[in-house]
Amino acid sequence: MAYSIDLHDIANQDPAYVETIFALGNGQMGVRASDPIVRSATAGTLVNGFFESSPITYGESAFGYAKNHQTIVNLPDSRFLTVTTDTGAVFTQSERQSTRLNLDSGVLHEQFVLATEAGETVHLDLESVMGQSTSELGLRYTFTGQTYTGKLRLSKQLLEGSATIDSDDPRKTQQVTTLSYSTDLVTPADQRMEVVTRQSRLHVMMQLLALDGDLQTEIDIASPKTQTYVVRVGGVGQALKNVEPTTFDAIAKDSQQYWAKVWEQGALEIDGDESLTQALRYNVFQLNQGAGRDGLTNIAAKGLSGTGYEGHYFWDTEMYMLPYFIYTQPDQAKALLMYRHHILPQAQARAKTLGVNSGALFAWRTINGEEASAYYPAGTAQYHIDGDIAFGVGRYYEVTQDQDFLNQAGFELVLETARFWAHFGAWRTTADGKRFEFFDVTGPDEYTAIVNNNYYTNRLAQNNLELAVTLSQHVTPEVLAQLQVTPEELEAFATIAAAIYLPYNAEHQINAQDDSFFDKPVWPFADTPKANYPLLLHYHPLTIYRYQVAKQADTLLAEYLFPSDTEPDQLQREFDYYETVTTHDSSLSRSIFSMVAARLGRDDKAFSYFMDTAKMDLVDLQGNAEDGLHMANLGGSWLAITTGFAGLSVIDGTLNLHNHLPKQWQGLTFRILFQGRRLQIHLDHDELAVVLLEGEALDVVIDGQPDTIKPA
Amino acid sequence: MAYSIDLHDIANQDPAYVETIFALGNGQMGVRASDPIVRSATAGTLVNGFFESSPITYGESAFGYAKNHQTIVNLPDSRFLTVTTDTGAVFTQSERQSTRLNLDSGVLHEQFVLATEAGETVHLDLESVMGQSTSELGLRYTFTGQTYTGKLRLSKQLLEGSATIDSDDPRKTQQVTTLSYSTDLVTPADQRMEVVTRQSRLHVMMQLLALDGDLQTEIDIASPKTQTYVVRVGGVGQALKNVEPTTFDAIAKDSQQYWAKVWEQGALEIDGDESLTQALRYNVFQLNQGAGRDGLTNIAAKGLSGTGYEGHYFWDTEMYMLPYFIYTQPDQAKALLMYRHHILPQAQARAKTLGVNSGALFAWRTINGEEASAYYPAGTAQYHIDGDIAFGVGRYYEVTQDQDFLNQAGFELVLETARFWAHFGAWRTTADGKRFEFFDVTGPDEYTAIVNNNYYTNRLAQNNLELAVTLSQHVTPEVLAQLQVTPEELEAFATIAAAIYLPYNAEHQINAQDDSFFDKPVWPFADTPKANYPLLLHYHPLTIYRYQVAKQADTLLAEYLFPSDTEPDQLQREFDYYETVTTHDSSLSRSIFSMVAARLGRDDKAFSYFMDTAKMDLVDLQGNAEDGLHMANLGGSWLAITTGFAGLSVIDGTLNLHNHLPKQWQGLTFRILFQGRRLQIHLDHDELAVVLLEGEALDVVIDGQPDTIKPA
Repeated sequence: MAYSIDLHDIANQDPAYVETIFALGNGQMGVRASDPIVRSATAGTLVNGFFESSPITYGESAFGYAKNHQTIVNLPDSRFLTVTTDTGAVFTQSERQSTRLNLDSGVLHEQFVLATEAGETVHLDLESVMGQSTSELGLRYTFTGQTYTGKLRLSKQLLEGSATIDSDDPRKTQQVTTLSYSTDLVTPADQRMEVVTRQSRLHVMMQLLALDGDLQTEIDIASPKTQTYVVRVGGVGQALKNVEPTTFDAIAKDSQQYWAKVWEQGALEIDGDESLTQALRYNVFQLNQGAGRDGLTNIAAKGLSGTGYEGHYFWDTEMYMLPYFIYTQPDQAKALLMYRHHILPQAQARAKTLGVNSGALFAWRTINGEEASAYYPAGTAQYHIDGDIAFGVGRYYEVTQDQDFLNQAGFELVLETARFWAHFGAWRTTADGKRFEFFDVTGPDEYTAIVNNNYYTNRLAQNNLELAVTLSQHVTPEVLAQLQVTPEELEAFATIAAAIYLPYNAEHQINAQDDSFFDKPVWPFADTPKANYPLLLHYHPLTIYRYQVAKQADTLLAEYLFPSDTEPDQLQREFDYYETVTTHDSSLSRSIFSMVAARLGRDDKAFSYFMDTAKMDLVDLQGNAEDGLHMANLGGSWLAITTGFAGLSVIDGTLNLHNHLPKQWQGLTFRILFQGRRLQIHLDHDELAVVLLEGEALDVVIDGQPDTIKPA
Repeated sequence: MAYSIDLHDIANQDPAYVETIFALGNGQMGVRASDPIVRSATAGTLVNGFFESSPITYGESAFGYAKNHQTIVNLPDSRFLTVTTDTGAVFTQSERQSTRLNLDSGVLHEQFVLATEAGETVHLDLESVMGQSTSELGLRYTFTGQTYTGKLRLSKQLLEGSATIDSDDPRKTQQVTTLSYSTDLVTPADQRMEVVTRQSRLHVMMQLLALDGDLQTEIDIASPKTQTYVVRVGGVGQALKNVEPTTFDAIAKDSQQYWAKVWEQGALEIDGDESLTQALRYNVFQLNQGAGRDGLTNIAAKGLSGTGYEGHYFWDTEMYMLPYFIYTQPDQAKALLMYRHHILPQAQARAKTLGVNSGALFAWRTINGEEASAYYPAGTAQYHIDGDIAFGVGRYYEVTQDQDFLNQAGFELVLETARFWAHFGAWRTTADGKRFEFFDVTGPDEYTAIVNNNYYTNRLAQNNLELAVTLSQHVTPEVLAQLQVTPEELEAFATIAAAIYLPYNAEHQINAQDDSFFDKPVWPFADTPKANYPLLLHYHPLTIYRYQVAKQADTLLAEYLFPSDTEPDQLQREFDYYETVTTHDSSLSRSIFSMVAARLGRDDKAFSYFMDTAKMDLVDLQGNAEDGLHMANLGGSWLAITTGFAGLSVIDGTLNLHNHLPKQWQGLTFRILFQGRRLQIHLDHDELAVVLLEGEALDVVIDGQPDTIKPA
């Protein structure tokens, strides 16, 4: 069956919110579903990695602070069209009648009634489709007369984008106004524009083609009349790949083929719950639209659906989104990791700035690899991004066994991050012996900052060091020599990894988020009005920090990543404890809670957290989807299905699965790629079955029992 | 004998440095010793409390952040004079020949040779003196011909002040450019100017009077010729108190009388070391010049000697400077504390912003009472300022027994700060019992931020709560009723005070700076080049924070304040330990180390730290005296003499003294006021003797032995 998202599937009809939900993209170019005839401040065209920079002004600056903002640029609105009657009356009002995004074809189909000031109306049927192998947007406008049936003058051009909005809300974007545009009308049907950022000195090319007549044209809508345009965008600093005419159908076909493959490789279906399947497919659809594919770009926190978080890439990629690509589209996963390798020199420089003379420290938020976080306690202090990236490399290699990538880039990423940890941490001798510790760090939970021995950070650092040792045995001697790896260094890594301190709270008998988390009083939840969430917008950081309160899963995130670490009894206690002090003010939280609950057999909790995750943006749970989609959560919902309800994990290189199917569902089916095989996994209330669609027999563990999946 | 400071007494002859050292002030108005004929960016006239505000821009803002910069305004340079030959050649060059600041008369006497481009020279003898009971500066310019002996045209006017300098160094000031000036020439000899700040909406009046002829005049220097001017400044928002003509001699007499009283009440002499006596008297001189006297202003970090730290008032007042005034000029001490009472409403509002619904939290740095610190980890997080102010009130009352002040203002200050601590801290149950703790605070040491249970903070909070209980017995029932103090509240204060946790490090057997200080590795001092100090300018805050390294005395500062707390053996260990990890990058550090060393009988250390303290600005030890004097250290040097070498402390209301006279000195003499008595204290290597100059017999403890000092 065909899946689609409709206007009645979503939380509300606020224009900026609708623009986000129905945004189209292809990893390089994104277009919001803005009104086609009314200019909007939030409309625009985004190009992945195309940013302007501006100096960060601090109230009080200090050594090593991030120097420049990087802000994704809002390029001319591709969908905007000026429509005028033959007497010159402009259609200035529009009413959205229907909107449907077809997840199988990628076509967005919208209907509007347009009106002039005088009340003359026409009907507009607009189809938009994004080329996936070519960076071009097809736009087909069909006009039908209503109270007005005469001639229409259509003027299509690339108008300068609106300035983005300045705000005190750190989750929004900063203002960008310093673009330089140069436009060239090659033919009356072919406009080209170069946009250059004045400070960051980047440029992109845009092309606007009219396929039926000219960009300035007149049509007669006595009968329905269609006008087709194509907008093309080049990559940052690149020429347009193709400037020749094309057709809407050719773009649509390209789109169709792309999505067919996505759904073929990454099939995902909840038996008997069409609405939920639709929501999950929507999430996967948007994940694909937002992910940079060229090895030079990544996935912004809002993908290409909005300018929130300034178009920056965070740790979310490796921890929340990369797994989907690893298991369904390894080439895409590799491209995302290659981006990290591409910015490794900046990370090496950053380590030195932070007083660590060996290894690399990746920027907490960045586009070009330089740190752009202007608030280090919840930015640079989140050193764990190094461990997150290394974890992503490890998982990618484990699932794909991609030797070339390991030799070319993967091992170096793991090695340089391991080197950072080894020089960043410190030995300490306690009554319990000598151990390796990390001071003044911030874990994933941004409501607890600048602490010692954050469990998550320490555990990821440990994994990172262990990975460096393990993967050193899988790369060529030439790679080891080139990277100046010595046996002594690897031995030191192993020694440190074994000695890394993982804090434990004896009173509650659970792993402790950090050294002092449990010393603090619990946040006064009973005295906190609902309107005061998210806390970060209503309390000073110092107020939030001095209480036990978590914005999101922190220790539980480590537990999810390392399922063999902790016995179920303890994990139960941890889940219960951390749940009481977590606000889920971050969109990265609920999916993790769902997965851990599923693992624990806490079916109701797992289901309830999952449902918030699955439709987070469709129901606007966080209340700010207008700024763009919560990309990490989109990936999180896929993780909750696979890692949570199907218990997917890789333990010592072996695929493990557990049947945690919620009682609300009849069954669950999804596909993954694993070590050269294509697998289809089906859960119902009787069993969890794995079908080998392609490849050789595979040893797996299902519900704790070893099994071998053989070709049919 | 007469004391003075000369050009050859100081570190160098850099103009900006010389401007600072020889700055004149009277607590309301300050004038730097800038070149009188060459305009300088660092010249100007400062008015205590006269600031412009501008919005603080944060790279990433958050709830409750300080909203506005407050920046002291650089008003027109009072000393500038345009000197021209009768053919119109301007004297554009000047060479400083000599400079002497007389500490007994307050007269600054400078000599310059002025030159035109063509090389014509004249000699200028400039005397400047600041009225102390009237806010006016007398200026007497005497010209003597050299290669030029004709007529001189003199043009004296108040020219708009230079913009202050913008810099990344947080210790400098921010830029201010938004002043509005309106000038009125009342008579040819009387110019008046109103200066209004556009944002903060403050205004001051300035008056410039020519006493010999007009402001524009011509003189014949065939023989030496003198021209005298007076510059008057009104308080912020006030009219000029007096606009009538005066004489230079009248101002000089006023100055002379003021300083005579200062030296009479606060005599200070090191027998046999004239140079050191001179330096100490200089420090006291500048302390007096910088201290606001009207109860609406305070002492800026640089006094009125420069625009460093934006003219803000910090905790330094109570901890480093107030003691001098308490013991020698109680009315001045009271005025400083009345300023805190004046800004109490802002402090009450600030507590609420920081999530504490009772009591008051004073701004870390401010002029008008609102928080102006744009970096909360070393700003707002230094909650200890509340305890510092309460300590100051307690000490003032103990020494002066000023009942009126206690009823009118003092008790309310102690009560409201105590209320803050009681609601800010948290109870915690540990294996050692129930205790009261404070989380995510920063102590005096700004190289260790956002920690739990900073010893200094906790100890000062404890003292604050105890003081509230004690002083409640000294105020009238009406005051208690008006402030809604109940016996239950006081009981709660006592319970909390008794339960406040004071961290102790069992390994080193010393009081611990905070909960995790000793967990961290010691700063790699051996690998740190000298050029990398102060560390704050060469390392990211996160790098500094993750090591054991202190910018200044922290736990030792608490030890100095509470001499009965810690046994000598432990204090020895504390001194030794903290000394190894303290860089003294703050000017507030060495005086404390000197005092503690003196108490411990570590004479060499005490002497050596003291010597750095005594001449800190005269030798430019910190390297940034050009931005203004290190006011807190000026007070610290007086403290080191009295509290250190003479062992002055007040224990249970009784004056204690100890003879710790350095072997390098023959003797030490100083005077203090104590509980209505005037005392002269003399130390030599035989004894410590107290003479009662005025008042009734007094019980004291000298070198541990009780004694009674009787009238002669």
